Amino acid sequence: MKKILTLLALLLGCTVQGWAGEVRPAPDATLFQVSTIDALLSGVYDGNVTIGELRKHGDFGLGTFNRLDGEMLAVDGRYYQIKADGAAYPVPPSLKTPFASVVRFKGMKTLALPRGISGAGLEKWLDERLDNKNLFYAIRIDGKFGRMQTRAVAAQEQPYRPLVEVVKTQAVFNLDNTRGVIVGLWSPVFSKGISVPGYHWHFLTADRKAGGHILSFSVDEASAKIDAVSNFNVRLPRDEAFAKTDLSQDREHELNKVEK
Amino acid sequence: MKKILTLLALLLGCTVQGWAGEVRPAPDATLFQVSTIDALLSGVYDGNVTIGELRKHGDFGLGTFNRLDGEMLAVDGRYYQIKADGAAYPVPPSLKTPFASVVRFKGMKTLALPRGISGAGLEKWLDERLDNKNLFYAIRIDGKFGRMQTRAVAAQEQPYRPLVEVVKTQAVFNLDNTRGVIVGLWSPVFSKGISVPGYHWHFLTADRKAGGHILSFSVDEASAKIDAVSNFNVRLPRDEAFAKTDLSQDREHELNKVEK
Repeated sequence: MKKILTLLALLLGCTVQGWAGEVRPAPDATLFQVSTIDALLSGVYDGNVTIGELRKHGDFGLGTFNRLDGEMLAVDGRYYQIKADGAAYPVPPSLKTPFASVVRFKGMKTLALPRGISGAGLEKWLDERLDNKNLFYAIRIDGKFGRMQTRAVAAQEQPYRPLVEVVKTQAVFNLDNTRGVIVGLWSPVFSKGISVPGYHWHFLTADRKAGGHILSFSVDEASAKIDAVSNFNVRLPRDEAFAKTDLSQDREHELNKVEK
Repeated sequence: MKKILTLLALLLGCTVQGWAGEVRPAPDATLFQVSTIDALLSGVYDGNVTIGELRKHGDFGLGTFNRLDGEMLAVDGRYYQIKADGAAYPVPPSLKTPFASVVRFKGMKTLALPRGISGAGLEKWLDERLDNKNLFYAIRIDGKFGRMQTRAVAAQEQPYRPLVEVVKTQAVFNLDNTRGVIVGLWSPVFSKGISVPGYHWHFLTADRKAGGHILSFSVDEASAKIDAVSNFNVRLPRDEAFAKTDLSQDREHELNKVEK
């Protein structure tokens, strides 16, 4: 009986998919990225893709907004803008982003995380559990966090300074002993220059009112859901600022200063 | 009248697109790539995407085949396999590729090329004419070539040696004073490790019987058609060989030995 129901569900699924014009499901999850991290580090802050367009490519992810106006976090299909005042705002679909990475999140693998572990400890712990470090991973962590220090950058004015200069004046928030959700991405080492190699974490409180780019955290009690992602789609800006940026330099040193 | 016809054509276009389930046209051309160049350099030669699948993503491009069995060239929607015997063969859709880059070619910009220019000279000449070096470009060159030296690699057996070793035994062909088509890609510097930064040229004779990866060439009389490409989609292999490959090394030195 169970088999027949499964077969029926499969048949119905096929019909619905066929009707929607998508006969073949995608072979795997796709990370959709706007611009490159090195362009952002260089000061290419004018948005070139609207959030309305971005949400077609994913319901989960992170990034920033036009003129570097805050930290982006997307979860459950909702996009949040955590501004330099520390508050999380809903995002109008017309707002643009100069850098973002989003995916349709499924959460195929679930892991209970060790209690009391630090962010750095958790990264090492996860290192052992991501089967293939040459893929991307989307990581959602729901739980209670003992330590949770975040930051948010503020909207910039032309002429834009490099990100490594901007973060010297970033707002820092201590949201310790908070329930909430961490949106994380793992990017493989070879995506350097395009993406942020290693882990990249943004946070949103359970009441969806605060958060930011995570500087440090510790886990009180939390579980993670993880998707391996083998398709990586990058949309490069066609504007003059991107065209004129020297992307031949190694900005690893700047990235480390900006992300930590 | 002309305006009305244009409007009518636009309306009809929208209707047909709507019917096909694609309301919005893609914002720009997309380069679809299988795996990474550094994985290929490392000896990940087992194909993971069929040509049947690949051709859904492009009618123009280059690459190689399962077990490194020859050079791939796609033009006008036809895929060719130039084997180590120097001959170009049609490609069965079931054949797989471990590395390929393809695009739907439009040829938006046309350039008459300087007569008698060498391949190296042409690259410098094109450097001045690609508006935005931080994008990808698909370049098709049709004409007569005074010098045309190509190579083709042969199918490999397990355990695979790195590409820099394999090319020591590559077959080299002198196809001087030949009409034909060059399929070229320009990849931006920041795609290093994933794609082949700079120019990458494959050749096919006008009779579609010979060709290969270009080692050197000169232009007798030719014109180029060029598309700027701002979407870059990478499909990473999910097999064990790719998972276990150390992609943290800088393989620029190996790439230079392999491509020239």
